[in-house]
Amino acid sequence: MTNPSDGRGKLLFTPGPLTTSRAVKEAMLQDLGSRDTAFIDTVRRIRQRLLTLAGVSQERGYEALLMQGSGTFGLEAVVSSTVPRGGRLLVLVNGAYGERIVQMTGVLGIDTRVVRYAENTPLDVAEVRQVLAEDPAITNVSAVHCETTTGLLNPVEELGAVVREAGRYFFVDAMSSFGAIPLDLEAACIDFLVTSANKCLEGVPGFSIVLARREALLATEGAARALSLDVQAQWRGLEANGQFRFTPPTHTILALEQALQELEKEGGMAGRAARYRANHAALIDGMRRLGFQVYLRPEHQSYIITSFHYPDDPRFSFGVFYERLNEKGLVIYPGKLTHADCFRIGTIGQIFTQDVERLVAAVGQVLEEMGVSMAAPSPASSS
Amino acid sequence: MTNPSDGRGKLLFTPGPLTTSRAVKEAMLQDLGSRDTAFIDTVRRIRQRLLTLAGVSQERGYEALLMQGSGTFGLEAVVSSTVPRGGRLLVLVNGAYGERIVQMTGVLGIDTRVVRYAENTPLDVAEVRQVLAEDPAITNVSAVHCETTTGLLNPVEELGAVVREAGRYFFVDAMSSFGAIPLDLEAACIDFLVTSANKCLEGVPGFSIVLARREALLATEGAARALSLDVQAQWRGLEANGQFRFTPPTHTILALEQALQELEKEGGMAGRAARYRANHAALIDGMRRLGFQVYLRPEHQSYIITSFHYPDDPRFSFGVFYERLNEKGLVIYPGKLTHADCFRIGTIGQIFTQDVERLVAAVGQVLEEMGVSMAAPSPASSS
Repeated sequence: MTNPSDGRGKLLFTPGPLTTSRAVKEAMLQDLGSRDTAFIDTVRRIRQRLLTLAGVSQERGYEALLMQGSGTFGLEAVVSSTVPRGGRLLVLVNGAYGERIVQMTGVLGIDTRVVRYAENTPLDVAEVRQVLAEDPAITNVSAVHCETTTGLLNPVEELGAVVREAGRYFFVDAMSSFGAIPLDLEAACIDFLVTSANKCLEGVPGFSIVLARREALLATEGAARALSLDVQAQWRGLEANGQFRFTPPTHTILALEQALQELEKEGGMAGRAARYRANHAALIDGMRRLGFQVYLRPEHQSYIITSFHYPDDPRFSFGVFYERLNEKGLVIYPGKLTHADCFRIGTIGQIFTQDVERLVAAVGQVLEEMGVSMAAPSPASSS
Repeated sequence: MTNPSDGRGKLLFTPGPLTTSRAVKEAMLQDLGSRDTAFIDTVRRIRQRLLTLAGVSQERGYEALLMQGSGTFGLEAVVSSTVPRGGRLLVLVNGAYGERIVQMTGVLGIDTRVVRYAENTPLDVAEVRQVLAEDPAITNVSAVHCETTTGLLNPVEELGAVVREAGRYFFVDAMSSFGAIPLDLEAACIDFLVTSANKCLEGVPGFSIVLARREALLATEGAARALSLDVQAQWRGLEANGQFRFTPPTHTILALEQALQELEKEGGMAGRAARYRANHAALIDGMRRLGFQVYLRPEHQSYIITSFHYPDDPRFSFGVFYERLNEKGLVIYPGKLTHADCFRIGTIGQIFTQDVERLVAAVGQVLEEMGVSMAAPSPASSS
């Protein structure tokens, strides 16, 4: 089988794990002792770089730490160890990742208030202000920046201002946005942010990243509900001697350092955002020409991942569609919506406009092979 | 600087992360989608192989699953999601890793009874039988197989028989022993066992491994105290569609498949045990010739990791000793004992007797450089 991706393996048009650079993967060809100074230095540099990316610094009162496990482990670390015992978490939900936080609080036994919106509707800042005014028991608020369920971007800066004004702690799940959607932690009044190595930072999976305002972090004393998920203890361990409390994934951490260097070389968040925007524009343009309908309204749509409605033709089967693209070395992503039949295409990772164009061409070819007829191409912009 | 390890980088004489083979690291040079069939197949094969290694099978009622995060996350997953609500855990302790389980139950709020032994003394099977008879509230029992604190091997088979006879669930932390110290899960009456990819299996760090007796696993319904650390839910997710509930560390899992193939090629656990035994014999022999005293009695000592007393000479500084060896590309491990000044040397990973001999020679050289005088060589065997 010819490989259309020029030695890069299958191309992943997913929300992660992603296609990463060869150099990022090659950084893993080294066994370092977890207590070795070379590794400790790497971790220190990574923590520094992450703060810089978020527009903050230790001097300005912020801290960065790495947490073993997937992104969800990082989210649960923050939920389980920063909501005080006896506290109440307001969870803002408009997709599966908001729901996951609700699921966590259920298992953890944390008192929760949930405010839900439709999957195509951003969180409502005015309503959040009102809920916070009415419910003094709420101590913490959580929101998802880019809801990977749909690709929707929530107004976290505006939410942050409202939460800070109301004197509560604000936690943002920025899993699929950090690194490519500029966000100033201080300006957005964010107390805790979680992201992952294997999304827009273009590292490989193995750990998550927690950014925190130090004062908020110090205030979490005694809140932890699990030893391994204790954010403050993890930070104190790293501060004490640069080492992790428990064995770190040394190889994948080395990969992140390489990935961060590449991000810098690309022009930081702005440079990466430009490439992802171009990928997304090429995708929307190409898919519309084929007759696909985008699920979200353009003003709510991020350039990270996009949900497309299934073609309105009974000959379309997502399983067959996925497999045929997969055979061509192009991996897309199933949908996760409750009320609409959609699939998703990610435009992040080591993916460039020519790759997106190749994907669109392959989509057209597969539809033709399947005998799926599409509606007339949708207009260039629906806004 | 000349590299004495022939292109393998620094040699890690530690309890992990370890020196791994080039092929294990090269298995990570691939980005696979976490929902791709190629990856799903890899995970299925790994789970199968792990059961075979433990002398059991799904047909005989056992299950294997992988859990994101370090070994400690896997331990806490079992502690937090298999001890029933209202249950009581008997924690058997003779080192830092037993103490870590006590620490977990404190944070998790799990009722615990602790029975402690000195760090140089194996767990006492007769006493455990008595405690179980006297304390009917105990529902679960935990023990550490090879206490990495010292290198001591605990009698888990005998303990298993006693725990099963008393009708309690038995959990074994086999972090640093699984893969090199043969253990039949069924014969040892073990309900839950946790180990890590980056110890004797010679993979890289990034996740832990849980082996479970299915009946015991099914009985844990509703016990989970954190979403991400829920062993039964993790297993159900893998069984449902072969996929992880949350993003798996795809690259490090690919590395484990390669590592398991190499383990098989080496002759399975018996073959690996033979190499590690030879490493350990070369170490003990060489270090005794230099005048070092082994901390443990030979009958309690495993061939995984060995604690040596500091030389009885004020010119010895562990920091200097460690750094000088490190400069020669040889990484040893500090001690973790409460009552004795020791350092540790691991004999696991892609390490061979000639590497151990090189280490011993370097130790001799560094002592001479430091002007440390040793006592007369200790007798070849103290047993």
